[in-house]
Amino acid sequence: MLKRDYQGQNCSIARALEVVGERWTLLIVRDAFLGLRRFEQFQESLGIARNVLTDRLNRLVEEGILVRVRYSERPERYEYRLTQKGRDLNVALVALRQWGDKYLSEKPPRVLRRKADKKPVVAALVPKGADVLRPDEVELVPGPGLKSRDRVVTRASSSSVELFADHVKAFLNG
Amino acid sequence: MLKRDYQGQNCSIARALEVVGERWTLLIVRDAFLGLRRFEQFQESLGIARNVLTDRLNRLVEEGILVRVRYSERPERYEYRLTQKGRDLNVALVALRQWGDKYLSEKPPRVLRRKADKKPVVAALVPKGADVLRPDEVELVPGPGLKSRDRVVTRASSSSVELFADHVKAFLNG
Repeated sequence: MLKRDYQGQNCSIARALEVVGERWTLLIVRDAFLGLRRFEQFQESLGIARNVLTDRLNRLVEEGILVRVRYSERPERYEYRLTQKGRDLNVALVALRQWGDKYLSEKPPRVLRRKADKKPVVAALVPKGADVLRPDEVELVPGPGLKSRDRVVTRASSSSVELFADHVKAFLNG
Repeated sequence: MLKRDYQGQNCSIARALEVVGERWTLLIVRDAFLGLRRFEQFQESLGIARNVLTDRLNRLVEEGILVRVRYSERPERYEYRLTQKGRDLNVALVALRQWGDKYLSEKPPRVLRRKADKKPVVAALVPKGADVLRPDEVELVPGPGLKSRDRVVTRASSSSVELFADHVKAFLNG
């Protein structure tokens, strides 16, 4: 999204930042992981101008990170879902989250754990081929740092990979 | 660095992006991992305006990600080194790199591997407490996608965590 300003950079990190380094973009992806799918949900969660959100969503679709799917014919309504490419940003987001938890948050607002035994999950370096957790084996749950206005509602979703989440406000309004 | 625009966001990812989400900031941290330490080296590597680089370096020092260390008294000269907080961004950078490798680079410009057996290393989700690699057990080496102008010179450095790297151009000029 950064207008190829990193052109001289032969580096996959620079290329990744060209796509997801733009303001808000990674937070939209984060919200998509939290189960948000509709324009109004992203808007409610992020509180950004509608034209900015429209632009970011369009670019995420262009880049193949989100896909726009019609969920209602009359009225015509669309929602945004993560593609495989989008879901593969999971480890980077978890790693950023745990760095923020360690250095910038008093208490973690959200906690990632293994579904099977509720054990905390971390992003880490391992030899390729090592035993690692698949996305559908983990879940993100409210942590001790979550304030009530951020509390999420979790439900079984059609895809076990995804958590459905909504801010209480949107929930009460909806 | 994003002027606390994510104020309404009770989220460690948003907090992390406030600090490292700014243009160029993560690329400066990447270069620090590659062993660059001096202003001229960062400038050569990134090709950005000197005032922008000065600003980003100062903010990284303010945030405790880099520390400014005097390495010469006459003339007075300083270099920038990663703190523990900075080094802890390693997993996030590796995760972004592997996502970029998978989707945006034809061939990986650089490859992360375990020093002991040269086995490729990945960032992944594991249960907390699982056997993971320490930063000093891995090394970043030129990959099949690296062009000659980006080729790095590796040498044993004072800290085994760090690789010393320089672009050939800087090398020939220096």
